Amino acid sequence: MKARIIVTLKTGVLDPQGKAIESALKSFGIDDVGSVRQGKVFDVEIAATDGTDAEATLKAACEKLLANTVVENYAIEIV
Amino acid sequence: MKARIIVTLKTGVLDPQGKAIESALKSFGIDDVGSVRQGKVFDVEIAATDGTDAEATLKAACEKLLANTVVENYAIEIV
Repeated sequence: MKARIIVTLKTGVLDPQGKAIESALKSFGIDDVGSVRQGKVFDVEIAATDGTDAEATLKAACEKLLANTVVENYAIEIV
Repeated sequence: MKARIIVTLKTGVLDPQGKAIESALKSFGIDDVGSVRQGKVFDVEIAATDGTDAEATLKAACEKLLANTVVENYAIEIV
C-alpha cells in the first residue's frame, strides 16, 4: 500500500525559505506569484493491507518523527 | 488563486534522506514501513485568475527554480 504524507508549516509560522523562493522567483521575472510556503512530502510504501491500520501507523510516524506538531501540520493520503 | 507544486525525485535516483528516515522509523519501532522517499511541496498564491495562465507561470517557476528537472519530477495542482 502506498501513502503520501504532506507536512506544511502552520499558518502564522514564519517561513523564511518560502520568502527567499518568492524573491528569487521575482528576480527571475516571474512577478505574479504572491506568497510561497514550502513544506515536505514523504512517499511511503507500507506493509499494512488495511487502510485504517496503515493510517494509524503513519500517524504514529508523523507524530514521532516526520512532523514537528508544534509548528507543523500533516496530512496523510492513502494512494 | 492557490496552487500546490509537488517536487519528487525521479524513480531510480538515490534518496539517502529517505533511506535515513526509513531506518529512523524502524528504530522508533515502526516496522511495517517499506521504502520512504522525500520530496518538497510549495504552496503558492498566484495573481492570475485564469487556470491556464496560472499553470504556465508555475511551469516556468518549476523549470527555472523549483525543480531540478534532471533528477526531479514536478506536479502542479490548482486548488
